[in-house]
Amino acid sequence: MTKRSTYDVPRAIDWVGGLDGHAALIDQTLLPGKLEIIECHAPETVWHAIKRLSVRGAPAIGIAAAMGVVLGVRDHDEDDVAGFVTRIRGVCDYLAGARPTAINLFWALDRMRKVGESADELGVSATKQALLAEARRIREEDAAMCRAIGEAGLPLIQDGVAVLTHCNAGGLATAELGTALAPLYLAREAGRKFSVYADETRPLLQGARLTAWELGRAGVDVTLICDNAAGACMAAGRINLVITGADCVAANGDVANKIGTYSVAVLAAAHRIPFYVAAPSSTFALDKPTGAAIPIEERAAAEVRSGFGAMTAPKDVRCFNPAFDVTPARLLTGIITERGIISPVREEGIRELLSASATCPDSCAPS
Amino acid sequence: MTKRSTYDVPRAIDWVGGLDGHAALIDQTLLPGKLEIIECHAPETVWHAIKRLSVRGAPAIGIAAAMGVVLGVRDHDEDDVAGFVTRIRGVCDYLAGARPTAINLFWALDRMRKVGESADELGVSATKQALLAEARRIREEDAAMCRAIGEAGLPLIQDGVAVLTHCNAGGLATAELGTALAPLYLAREAGRKFSVYADETRPLLQGARLTAWELGRAGVDVTLICDNAAGACMAAGRINLVITGADCVAANGDVANKIGTYSVAVLAAAHRIPFYVAAPSSTFALDKPTGAAIPIEERAAAEVRSGFGAMTAPKDVRCFNPAFDVTPARLLTGIITERGIISPVREEGIRELLSASATCPDSCAPS
Repeated sequence: MTKRSTYDVPRAIDWVGGLDGHAALIDQTLLPGKLEIIECHAPETVWHAIKRLSVRGAPAIGIAAAMGVVLGVRDHDEDDVAGFVTRIRGVCDYLAGARPTAINLFWALDRMRKVGESADELGVSATKQALLAEARRIREEDAAMCRAIGEAGLPLIQDGVAVLTHCNAGGLATAELGTALAPLYLAREAGRKFSVYADETRPLLQGARLTAWELGRAGVDVTLICDNAAGACMAAGRINLVITGADCVAANGDVANKIGTYSVAVLAAAHRIPFYVAAPSSTFALDKPTGAAIPIEERAAAEVRSGFGAMTAPKDVRCFNPAFDVTPARLLTGIITERGIISPVREEGIRELLSASATCPDSCAPS
Repeated sequence: MTKRSTYDVPRAIDWVGGLDGHAALIDQTLLPGKLEIIECHAPETVWHAIKRLSVRGAPAIGIAAAMGVVLGVRDHDEDDVAGFVTRIRGVCDYLAGARPTAINLFWALDRMRKVGESADELGVSATKQALLAEARRIREEDAAMCRAIGEAGLPLIQDGVAVLTHCNAGGLATAELGTALAPLYLAREAGRKFSVYADETRPLLQGARLTAWELGRAGVDVTLICDNAAGACMAAGRINLVITGADCVAANGDVANKIGTYSVAVLAAAHRIPFYVAAPSSTFALDKPTGAAIPIEERAAAEVRSGFGAMTAPKDVRCFNPAFDVTPARLLTGIITERGIISPVREEGIRELLSASATCPDSCAPS
């Protein structure tokens, strides 16, 4: 943790120093009680940090894994090129096992593997530097993408607005700034006066533990509410904008996100409150025609029955605990991407935005 | 706990034996982990049970207080009539202090005071018996009222229905059967096949701790969900009826109930799922023209920040924690009362039902 942005958004993960440096990540399992930095000097430390959710959020996990590759190969003998390539693959395979369903993890490790393949040409020493550069690039690209989402969404955060958010799509889930929270951090930077309501987000309370923590730390005016209070807050006129993140956006604009997002969207529509989702273009899955094609993970009953140490329900009661729900495109006012806002949310608009990136990578890439 | 109904609904509070007996109440602070009965042989035990929420729910609190009066005066000298009346008043004043805002508590103690006033006529011994009879009558009237609500609502619980309920308006809050849960217990008794989803009901988790417990114990097919999952369950067609309790019904039919009820009502309307409230006629407040006149208690931030024993949010984060919300009459399909279902929910229908009770107390009284 060598640097901080002026608005004090915590860096979930960063690289400190040169090739002999280390990865530094916030132990999110200790938040909000303690802010402790885990210094990773070996890939095993990164593996465990991913495994036990010390680092979470798809982009942050990808960055951590990429840095883990650097840690795992940097002491390799400078003269052993063949062994070096094998070792890179081995470290990548090892790190991929930390969370077997995290797409960003594989994506980041693939990028590292590709860099490793040029070792024959570059030699061991230069490839080590190239791997560190690639890991840093993955982080910087994500940070730039978050900032671009923030800039696209900034016009929504005018003086006096009160924004509701759900779960944590903030700096802790990404390299910096987050997705849903990025427009808020930029509005804070711009000196705008606004307030935020954070849904606590049962069962895992990411809103209470992480969003309230990082917004409060950055000086944003934040109020924590139980998920049950969102409707009453809207009815009382306390909220006039909703922004959440997204785990996956289908081709027609249906959005899978943390359980409860759909309820918030229905409530927002009933109160005529604009409802936006913030998502990088990498979150769109054009092979899924609608939200019905997005698989919904069902998680352990223990999260509902005994989430925080105490048993708060009969120990044998059946629970239904879906991790995500699907919000249909018709309930979205817009999707804030790093290339601008898609509104209204229609399949044509989505395809147009995504194909634009394919044909003009330079001008459309996150700046 | 001498008797159990065949369907095994727990008795939150009961009197065991004769004048030398005791009040037996379930210690609800230990649920769902432990079922422990507190035997109250003195009014102090009742006072503490009310104070520390071992007994909760307006009707159950009133019954406990009435029984506490019996316990406080039953050893009075048979020859001291004047001192006996004074003592009854003293015990009533003492018990009234246990929860200074509980309307049913004062109402029940008033009934006991009135019985005490006939001591000059009846003598001490007969008045003691009359006080015990009155306490039992308060309990029996409440049990009958719950059963009448259950019978009114029973036609809604057909084979195959899946009912969502919020908070705990069950046997634990009343003498028996509860209000919202009464139709479910009678449907179970009638052998109907149906299922129930219980919202866990943050912040105090009455759905998880109490509703899931008492329904499960009675053999009702119950599934516990986080409040966040209610919308997704509705969208998936898992729920086709909602019944909740009510803390107060305004003259126009607006309903104040546990925080989150309003959100459930909006979701039900969006999915065209019938939404019923179950409430005895004593819950209607005709002096309040609309829900806007019902004061909403705001409770401690600690319930949100550290409700599970662990601190799950930044310790200094601002919280907004309303205990109740108001569901407008337009979102209600009907109100299930002990005298039948009011549907549609309109001021005329409510006044008609309540005035009917005033003019024909015998035929309209709960059976």
